[in-house]
Amino acid sequence: MIVVLRTDVSEPQINHVLERVQELGFEPRLIRGEFRTIVGLIGDDNKTAAGALEAIPGVEQVLRILKPFKMASREFHKEDSIVPVGKGKVRIGGGHLAMIAGPCAVESLEGLRAIAGHVKKAGANILRGGAFKPRTSPYAFQGMGEDGLKILRDVGDEVDMPVVTEVMDTRQVPLVEKWADMFQIGARNMQNFDLLKEVGQTRKPVLLKRGMSATVKDLLMSAEYVLAEGNPNVVLCERGVRSFEDSTRNMLDMSAVPNVKGQSHLPIIVDPSHATGRPDLIPSMAMASVAAKADGVHVEVHDCPEKAFSDGPQALLPPQFASLMDDLRKLATLLGRTID
Amino acid sequence: MIVVLRTDVSEPQINHVLERVQELGFEPRLIRGEFRTIVGLIGDDNKTAAGALEAIPGVEQVLRILKPFKMASREFHKEDSIVPVGKGKVRIGGGHLAMIAGPCAVESLEGLRAIAGHVKKAGANILRGGAFKPRTSPYAFQGMGEDGLKILRDVGDEVDMPVVTEVMDTRQVPLVEKWADMFQIGARNMQNFDLLKEVGQTRKPVLLKRGMSATVKDLLMSAEYVLAEGNPNVVLCERGVRSFEDSTRNMLDMSAVPNVKGQSHLPIIVDPSHATGRPDLIPSMAMASVAAKADGVHVEVHDCPEKAFSDGPQALLPPQFASLMDDLRKLATLLGRTID
Amino acid sequence: MIVVLRTDVSEPQINHVLERVQELGFEPRLIRGEFRTIVGLIGDDNKTAAGALEAIPGVEQVLRILKPFKMASREFHKEDSIVPVGKGKVRIGGGHLAMIAGPCAVESLEGLRAIAGHVKKAGANILRGGAFKPRTSPYAFQGMGEDGLKILRDVGDEVDMPVVTEVMDTRQVPLVEKWADMFQIGARNMQNFDLLKEVGQTRKPVLLKRGMSATVKDLLMSAEYVLAEGNPNVVLCERGVRSFEDSTRNMLDMSAVPNVKGQSHLPIIVDPSHATGRPDLIPSMAMASVAAKADGVHVEVHDCPEKAFSDGPQALLPPQFASLMDDLRKLATLLGRTID
Amino acid sequence: MIVVLRTDVSEPQINHVLERVQELGFEPRLIRGEFRTIVGLIGDDNKTAAGALEAIPGVEQVLRILKPFKMASREFHKEDSIVPVGKGKVRIGGGHLAMIAGPCAVESLEGLRAIAGHVKKAGANILRGGAFKPRTSPYAFQGMGEDGLKILRDVGDEVDMPVVTEVMDTRQVPLVEKWADMFQIGARNMQNFDLLKEVGQTRKPVLLKRGMSATVKDLLMSAEYVLAEGNPNVVLCERGVRSFEDSTRNMLDMSAVPNVKGQSHLPIIVDPSHATGRPDLIPSMAMASVAAKADGVHVEVHDCPEKAFSDGPQALLPPQFASLMDDLRKLATLLGRTID
Repeated sequence: MIVVLRTDVSEPQINHVLERVQELGFEPRLIRGEFRTIVGLIGDDNKTAAGALEAIPGVEQVLRILKPFKMASREFHKEDSIVPVGKGKVRIGGGHLAMIAGPCAVESLEGLRAIAGHVKKAGANILRGGAFKPRTSPYAFQGMGEDGLKILRDVGDEVDMPVVTEVMDTRQVPLVEKWADMFQIGARNMQNFDLLKEVGQTRKPVLLKRGMSATVKDLLMSAEYVLAEGNPNVVLCERGVRSFEDSTRNMLDMSAVPNVKGQSHLPIIVDPSHATGRPDLIPSMAMASVAAKADGVHVEVHDCPEKAFSDGPQALLPPQFASLMDDLRKLATLLGRTID
Repeated sequence: MIVVLRTDVSEPQINHVLERVQELGFEPRLIRGEFRTIVGLIGDDNKTAAGALEAIPGVEQVLRILKPFKMASREFHKEDSIVPVGKGKVRIGGGHLAMIAGPCAVESLEGLRAIAGHVKKAGANILRGGAFKPRTSPYAFQGMGEDGLKILRDVGDEVDMPVVTEVMDTRQVPLVEKWADMFQIGARNMQNFDLLKEVGQTRKPVLLKRGMSATVKDLLMSAEYVLAEGNPNVVLCERGVRSFEDSTRNMLDMSAVPNVKGQSHLPIIVDPSHATGRPDLIPSMAMASVAAKADGVHVEVHDCPEKAFSDGPQALLPPQFASLMDDLRKLATLLGRTID
Repeated sequence: MIVVLRTDVSEPQINHVLERVQELGFEPRLIRGEFRTIVGLIGDDNKTAAGALEAIPGVEQVLRILKPFKMASREFHKEDSIVPVGKGKVRIGGGHLAMIAGPCAVESLEGLRAIAGHVKKAGANILRGGAFKPRTSPYAFQGMGEDGLKILRDVGDEVDMPVVTEVMDTRQVPLVEKWADMFQIGARNMQNFDLLKEVGQTRKPVLLKRGMSATVKDLLMSAEYVLAEGNPNVVLCERGVRSFEDSTRNMLDMSAVPNVKGQSHLPIIVDPSHATGRPDLIPSMAMASVAAKADGVHVEVHDCPEKAFSDGPQALLPPQFASLMDDLRKLATLLGRTID
Repeated sequence: MIVVLRTDVSEPQINHVLERVQELGFEPRLIRGEFRTIVGLIGDDNKTAAGALEAIPGVEQVLRILKPFKMASREFHKEDSIVPVGKGKVRIGGGHLAMIAGPCAVESLEGLRAIAGHVKKAGANILRGGAFKPRTSPYAFQGMGEDGLKILRDVGDEVDMPVVTEVMDTRQVPLVEKWADMFQIGARNMQNFDLLKEVGQTRKPVLLKRGMSATVKDLLMSAEYVLAEGNPNVVLCERGVRSFEDSTRNMLDMSAVPNVKGQSHLPIIVDPSHATGRPDLIPSMAMASVAAKADGVHVEVHDCPEKAFSDGPQALLPPQFASLMDDLRKLATLLGRTID
């Protein structure tokens, strides 16, 4: 860390700063500049909070140099991580693309079976469907709960696809762990730290969605919570962030893909359904994601969006999804990526 | 709701739309305009999701007219709600101001006792202190847990102030309910819906902080979750939202105060400490909050910010807080508000 | 437009609303719903400002249905517009990709000549270079002015590439029109309406960059200013918007590409250099842009970024650009697009 | 500035960095840390662009320590600046509050005369009214131009109030200088650098509005453009920034007031009309502004908002404004501020 002192800092204040940083375990290096005096701290930035230093009288600001995450960083693990899902049936990362598809919510056995048949045939390799639904309104459909989980498991087995579903509360972790192949942590829970710790204590893969106003660094810090508990199987998901643009549901931050990949070994996929909320934009955003070297996409598909219990209008119809998968396969081939 | 049809909508599509909205329980009114055809839906907007309508072929957009929240709305409860805290010792709302102060985290009995003495003397009426801390990094201080709760309770009793503290996980609700007078739901958990339901099932007041990218409507919808479970004692808190401005920790949305008050009967206070992250900005923002008719402020105070375990630099020193309280009292008097 | 009345609206207020909207040239249709009364206005939304209606007593909100732009809309011109640059040497739109490259600023004849040789050889088809530079600081290099324009013209002729350069002020329009093949309106001037009108009165193509906090609709409205003056040759450019993410210079809103294309016939290209500010992210974002069906890319290239007078670090080196062009060509072929 | 080197930086790269920074006129200080090597640069940060340093191989990031503005900074001018308007009739800053009021646009002599009478009587001290209007749509009312300026001048003289009006283009500067007492630079032109230079060459005071996505630092840099040309009479204006919140027109960043005042000697006022776009929020935001120690407010007033040519719904009615002025006067007295 670097401590920048105020222009009017006094000598006793400088001495106090030097003492404090030594107490905190750093070796200070004082540089008196033409306009400012700074103190370089030799030691591990993560040993202490920048805040404690900023509160010392005479300090103007504290600049952090080291990355705050460790196990999620590229320095910690040079190679791309490859996350196995469904006992290794599908791999994500290192050139292997996840094609996750399914309805927003599990609504019935017949309904999910029909959609699963379509997405399997089109080439998807992981089936999604929500049993616990985070809804802005308490009066909206909240999901089928455990019944939904069982249906998801059964249909996943029928079509031979691993299944992923959202977990919203620490108390649901054992149940979701039992029935699903992969946990999904939704955007609203990206900083639900108790939930991150809880899934971190399992060994099931975790699909961690970026929070609506999370920076890329925040996302990696949340991944670090899971990794630090011992679960290395984290797949990140860009799903758009809040912005002033009012014609799309969120703003898809496509540059998060190479941005994450430069700093971290973890796979990252893109969810153009939630990012845009508009089926007319989903196919081109899915193509762009793969071109940007994302490790897969996550697309909602419904055979009758107007009767979907939630998020109908952001779902693709099965033929639209099949056509998109054709295009994605050609692009993947051009770029040397494979779809398990 | 109003359904706007596409310019190229066909007559069979229009008929299908009319049928569907009737199936969904609305009475449709068709208006064929010069440029567009629209359908006005007579009935309760909240009976169905706008999404289901947007997914009908020929529909371009669906405009919602009714507010999505009910129990939180001013129409539901005309008068300002007054929320009692600590067996009615302190009232918030309806002209009664909450002056919540204390350290970011409970760090020790002696430490909290000293700070509590200062803020009590300065005129604060509720003591705050975190025992469970939501930290971006898994390697940062995570709070003292139950030990912290007990210290907070003891010190609150010593200085005769009700106490408020954050609850982060559904499993912690009984514990926090036991020791504290008021739950705090932090910004990161504003849409942790299971947690909202859980505190909604108690009757302890809830201080609900606005999420970092939550709209005012989102905040009121989260309050609705608590109210819908039967707990009427919700106090909202504006604490800044994420923005592009990089010289403050968040952007304090001061207009949220009158904005909430126009739509809802619930009290709303402001937390300038988290909103700005800068002690030099806290006093003027606290004054502005009361001038904007907020029902109180929430300020972090620490007697040695440079040794605070978390968020030291955003805390006021006890003399700064005492001076601010003097100014706030004069302003409250001018505006006809009282501090219990 | 649709006028939503307040729940407490009185009959005299309703009558006044009906009179006012008739005065304004609309035919009103009153719908009395279960919870709200609304008035549908038959007529052209653009005849009046929503504001005038919102200010009528008893009105809660006014919902606009028609798009506010006309000549920029897909309804006005069904086919993709193809914009010719440099007397038709290069076409942009309708499957023809612009590959605009060059240094941020024209710094010298020799410097530009060297870079132009590289980008021409790599396959770029339009040369860029700034002579008037919009700089945040008044003390930063402000561009070579007319001398820079002449150098750009000369080098463009030498390498047989049309040239594009920024115009910042109405008084510079004749000069830039004389020397360049295409005007660039920078992000900071997207709503400099006098400048838009002035370039609208020429027939030279205009590269209109999205403002830092402009919505897609705002961008199309600014294009409308140019079109309304009689100049049909507008190419839009997504270059990132301001956001809370602090690890990239701006946030590239990739979905703006299909979003614009759905609503407008105008071509849109992407500038990953300004959007990200990071050379490590530029190649994947350029690939993603073409995959998203953008009509081209705009990339800064410099042969010695560390000595560039401005924006050096966001420039690609000539070999990096050549490698990117190879990848872009393969992708364009797969997608059936051509580069003139 | 501080140059942070990459973890994999080589010794030759370090030597090259040291050479380059010396060439650029800095004295380097190398610090080899446990995890990172950094170089502190002794010298004036503003001598060179951070960009040029970031582009040197082996450099990871460059941290700027000095403020980029000089003449706008508190260090340059310790005391609050007091800006005289209308030959010193009204002072802004240093405890003197500007109460700027009037219609959005000058619409007619009679109309302006009526409104001016109201605001004068209520206690406003500067009259505003737009003659050149920046409108998102080319089809909207663009202002009365020079005729509007003359009306504004005449009415200002009649009621003995200095007048302020917007200038949008460099070519309008002489005209506006002739008729008005103060230039207004609108939010959309905050970074129209040629316009800033042009008004900088006059000595008339300039009301500089914050851009819709400008940081506080950006705003101060734009002020620096005016100051650097020799015009010291700059008054800043916070008028809200773009955000995701969709229930207000913009988000009023109230903390910009003390934030600016800490760094700069320039006065700053607040415009709650444009910031919120809602008359129900304007009075409390005006009160909050003065409580936050702003040097005044800027409020739109219209006697018949439903017939206003632009922005009617964000205007207060004359009695609302009079009532607000009463409250503001009491608050100003409490805080020891004066209204000329």
